[in-house]
Amino acid sequence: MDKILRIDVGAEGGPKATTEELGDYAGLGGRAMTSIVVATEVPADCHALGPENKLVISPGLMAGSAASTSGRMSFGCKSPLTGGIKEANAGGQAGQYLARLGYAAIIIEGEAKTDDLYLVYIGQDKIEFKVDNSLRMLPNYDLCDKLKPVYGEKVSIISIGTAGEMKMANSTIAVTDVEFRPTRHAGRGGVGAVMGSKGIKALVIDPAGTKIRKPVDQEKFKASNKEFVEGLKRHAVTGQGLPTFGTNVLTNILNEAGAYPTYNFKEGRYKDHADLSGEAQANLENERGGPGSATLGCHRGCAIQCSGTYYDKDGNFLSKQPEYETTWSHGGNCGIHDLDVVAKLDFMDDNYGFDTIEMGATIGVAMEAGVIEFGDTEGAIRLVDEAGKGTPLGRILGAGTAVTAKCFGLEHAPVVKGQAMPAYDPRGVKGIGVTYATTTMGADHTAGYCIATNILKVGGDVDPHAVEGQAELSRNLQIATAALDATGFCLFVAFAILDQQDTFSAMIETINGMYGLSMTADDVVELGKTILKKEREFNQKAGLGKEHDRLPRYFKREALAPHNITFDVPDEELDSVYNF
Amino acid sequence: MDKILRIDVGAEGGPKATTEELGDYAGLGGRAMTSIVVATEVPADCHALGPENKLVISPGLMAGSAASTSGRMSFGCKSPLTGGIKEANAGGQAGQYLARLGYAAIIIEGEAKTDDLYLVYIGQDKIEFKVDNSLRMLPNYDLCDKLKPVYGEKVSIISIGTAGEMKMANSTIAVTDVEFRPTRHAGRGGVGAVMGSKGIKALVIDPAGTKIRKPVDQEKFKASNKEFVEGLKRHAVTGQGLPTFGTNVLTNILNEAGAYPTYNFKEGRYKDHADLSGEAQANLENERGGPGSATLGCHRGCAIQCSGTYYDKDGNFLSKQPEYETTWSHGGNCGIHDLDVVAKLDFMDDNYGFDTIEMGATIGVAMEAGVIEFGDTEGAIRLVDEAGKGTPLGRILGAGTAVTAKCFGLEHAPVVKGQAMPAYDPRGVKGIGVTYATTTMGADHTAGYCIATNILKVGGDVDPHAVEGQAELSRNLQIATAALDATGFCLFVAFAILDQQDTFSAMIETINGMYGLSMTADDVVELGKTILKKEREFNQKAGLGKEHDRLPRYFKREALAPHNITFDVPDEELDSVYNF
Repeated sequence: MDKILRIDVGAEGGPKATTEELGDYAGLGGRAMTSIVVATEVPADCHALGPENKLVISPGLMAGSAASTSGRMSFGCKSPLTGGIKEANAGGQAGQYLARLGYAAIIIEGEAKTDDLYLVYIGQDKIEFKVDNSLRMLPNYDLCDKLKPVYGEKVSIISIGTAGEMKMANSTIAVTDVEFRPTRHAGRGGVGAVMGSKGIKALVIDPAGTKIRKPVDQEKFKASNKEFVEGLKRHAVTGQGLPTFGTNVLTNILNEAGAYPTYNFKEGRYKDHADLSGEAQANLENERGGPGSATLGCHRGCAIQCSGTYYDKDGNFLSKQPEYETTWSHGGNCGIHDLDVVAKLDFMDDNYGFDTIEMGATIGVAMEAGVIEFGDTEGAIRLVDEAGKGTPLGRILGAGTAVTAKCFGLEHAPVVKGQAMPAYDPRGVKGIGVTYATTTMGADHTAGYCIATNILKVGGDVDPHAVEGQAELSRNLQIATAALDATGFCLFVAFAILDQQDTFSAMIETINGMYGLSMTADDVVELGKTILKKEREFNQKAGLGKEHDRLPRYFKREALAPHNITFDVPDEELDSVYNF
Repeated sequence: MDKILRIDVGAEGGPKATTEELGDYAGLGGRAMTSIVVATEVPADCHALGPENKLVISPGLMAGSAASTSGRMSFGCKSPLTGGIKEANAGGQAGQYLARLGYAAIIIEGEAKTDDLYLVYIGQDKIEFKVDNSLRMLPNYDLCDKLKPVYGEKVSIISIGTAGEMKMANSTIAVTDVEFRPTRHAGRGGVGAVMGSKGIKALVIDPAGTKIRKPVDQEKFKASNKEFVEGLKRHAVTGQGLPTFGTNVLTNILNEAGAYPTYNFKEGRYKDHADLSGEAQANLENERGGPGSATLGCHRGCAIQCSGTYYDKDGNFLSKQPEYETTWSHGGNCGIHDLDVVAKLDFMDDNYGFDTIEMGATIGVAMEAGVIEFGDTEGAIRLVDEAGKGTPLGRILGAGTAVTAKCFGLEHAPVVKGQAMPAYDPRGVKGIGVTYATTTMGADHTAGYCIATNILKVGGDVDPHAVEGQAELSRNLQIATAALDATGFCLFVAFAILDQQDTFSAMIETINGMYGLSMTADDVVELGKTILKKEREFNQKAGLGKEHDRLPRYFKREALAPHNITFDVPDEELDSVYNF
């Protein structure tokens, strides 16, 4: 990881790659790399789909090593959805491979001179650009099927579906998983459209000939990593809840808390929540069987294994095991409680390249607007299909939740900075509301996952309905998350490291062992702060000041059942989040 | 004009009207009234279609009097299109009638409790609310046809078409003209949607029993008004150009200047401009004849008479005489050079309630996106029809130029603050570019019409291609315009008052005569500054800070033929506009 691959798609005669030294970007990885490159090189007032924007891809600092659960890779750019800076990260195999190839980052820049669609092969011995317009409008699964015979299954594909090609504001970048399926997505903020705007359909990352990255201090690395893994296994969430039920373990918990947004954020509990729960999902998966039906990692070397594969009643592959946020967005939020339908929608989203959170929230808005009825499963399937094919209605939906509400003249758009809120009602869990409002990313639960402390009582206990303490909680988690997103460690390790000081220390020591450093927890905090400050500075220059760090007003006006609470954290509290 | 009519659409049992004294709003009219009420009473962070927004309707200070050319009426609210404050004014008869009824403003507020559609009758003896769902989705012309037998032609109708009912961000409020046609529109910023969100389809303003407003100083008023009218008649633009050719006198002039945006702002000259010119239009109208085919005022008492009626070759009414901005937006900007088609589109816009500038710019974007070809007249007609009927494609188009570009993944959206630029390329006329960028309204030529000085050499001479002097020019014109918009005098009087000091003095003395005041030119400037400051303060609180006072970056990057110039006024210059 000592070099940067810079791809100029506007070079004479087609895209050109140059390798350069890290320079000022030395020591950066993941979100630290993407956000600092974007903040440094992209003019904040540019158009997200214009020539001045750049797509930065960066594996975490620990990627490609033997460190456990460190396969997250960051994608950064100016977001077509929010108009601010964006980092979206994904699991899958590519991060590890890219790191083993020695790349700390790929920076894709410039203005494509033609409408040709390119495939980029990145291997140890060569980098190759291939015009392949036969890939046009291929969904991600079809693309992988087409590339498999050419490149084999030992490469990893980073690709866009039809959504990215159509430059939709809801469009992901897909990364293939351990089964060569395009199931892991840098989902949020429309990063796929930026890749599409550069005329690149897919990157083939080939690790052939590369080796696992060697730690500087092998002893320390090995011992710390072992302790880190043991810590993950020991914690109730990372050791039991997630592996057994996947992220969907949360459905019953959030519903019980009265913070499970239903019918486009109208109510906080859903009568049919049990049908969508992780428990129901695990039962179904175990009953139906099939390879990977229970637990699976999204990349090799994961100690948590929260993923799985979802088959229909006849044993046919339907999708990866849908995440909690997906069963919520396409399920409860739309009045749908059929897990098979949710899995089908999850597959369609992965295939076309849509963020499931944004798409489900968008359909919720379309349902409230009367386009289809709440609970209409066939209708929901049709809508995602229209979006993936770019019909006029699909163009609306593909532009995201905020635009859909605008097109249908609806106030009820559950968005911040144009990005849809995930599966936690900010009135029922005020800490997450503070994160939605203030993160640089637009409404995003992962940016500062206060659910941990508000609901799961991990890392402390802050009453979800209280005003006090939420800003501080969100601030601390946002800082920690930004740092974590730089390492490539999965956010889910946070459950263990927030509760177990020794696991946190072990994680830091694993990094120290890898790089021969002597970082402390304070250094981690400093890194997090630096990242957030850079991001916020970019956003301010892009016109997203503190007035944009707000929830839509109706969350302050309309009370949420069953607790009949509004979001009442004062603006001054929200503005205090960046007091550091 | 000594009272305010406040309509609470959320009152128990249906909308309720109360009359109140002017209080702090005394002395305000037109834009001064609408902007100060909105800035005072509407929370800047509210949703434009939500219950906290208000629609303020206010005739100018001189409305209802014998002062010439003073029939403009202002409509203000938070804009569904820009997210900032909005004042859009219209000619037509209603302003005069409302003033004669004694209302300085109507403030429509609250949240409708049902989906019912209301008709509001406002006469001297009664105010009446009538549920009339049979009016649902009636276009403006059909609505007027339906109301004529009930109320006669001596009332004026303020109404929304289907666009406003569907709460589209491009939706106008129509005001009937001297021929009881709904041809005068408060066009920009989606004011129709705000009226629609309050559940009001139309206001019937009945002046029966009222008298013309009496000046305090009859002598001074009469003499000054006479001198003012003489000044208007004497000036080449207001006395000859506008009456003879309408606003469309500008087509040849702007094309010659290389600042006539063509093919979605791709080029600055249009080969077929002559077919669209005011000269061609006047020839056609004179040839075809019919009542009002030559010149007509948009309201009684206008000394300029820039309007007219446009008939087809068989003598059938097609539309009012289309304005320059309409022949540009639906014509040259879309590669269309058939005046009959433009007139048809103008009629459709008036009928459905679309702003012609926004709609033409939107179709230009749709053409660049490949929805239809440039020059496709049938296609353009179909698109406006889809918008008026609210098909999925129509929902995109009805949401305006910026949303259309977002839905189709296009950088080339010629907008500022989400509002489409009018018929003057900001690269070819940099003063108007400064106005587009910095006005509180989103791209708007009327907010500081630098074309006057840059091109027509009225009120001085500032080279349209120079950087120097544009910020000052725009600042001065924005201040003067804000004040003028408070009086109800038509913006077109500016040509005469900028060039002729005695005409300017006469205008001020007419106001002084009306109110028994002794205002000076300095007082007028102060009023303009106060209005702009209030508006800007609102915008800042709404999240539209100086970072939003910018043109899209491609105007700085892509040179405009034939002069091959970019927009190169530095940001610091733009930021200096509000240095007062």
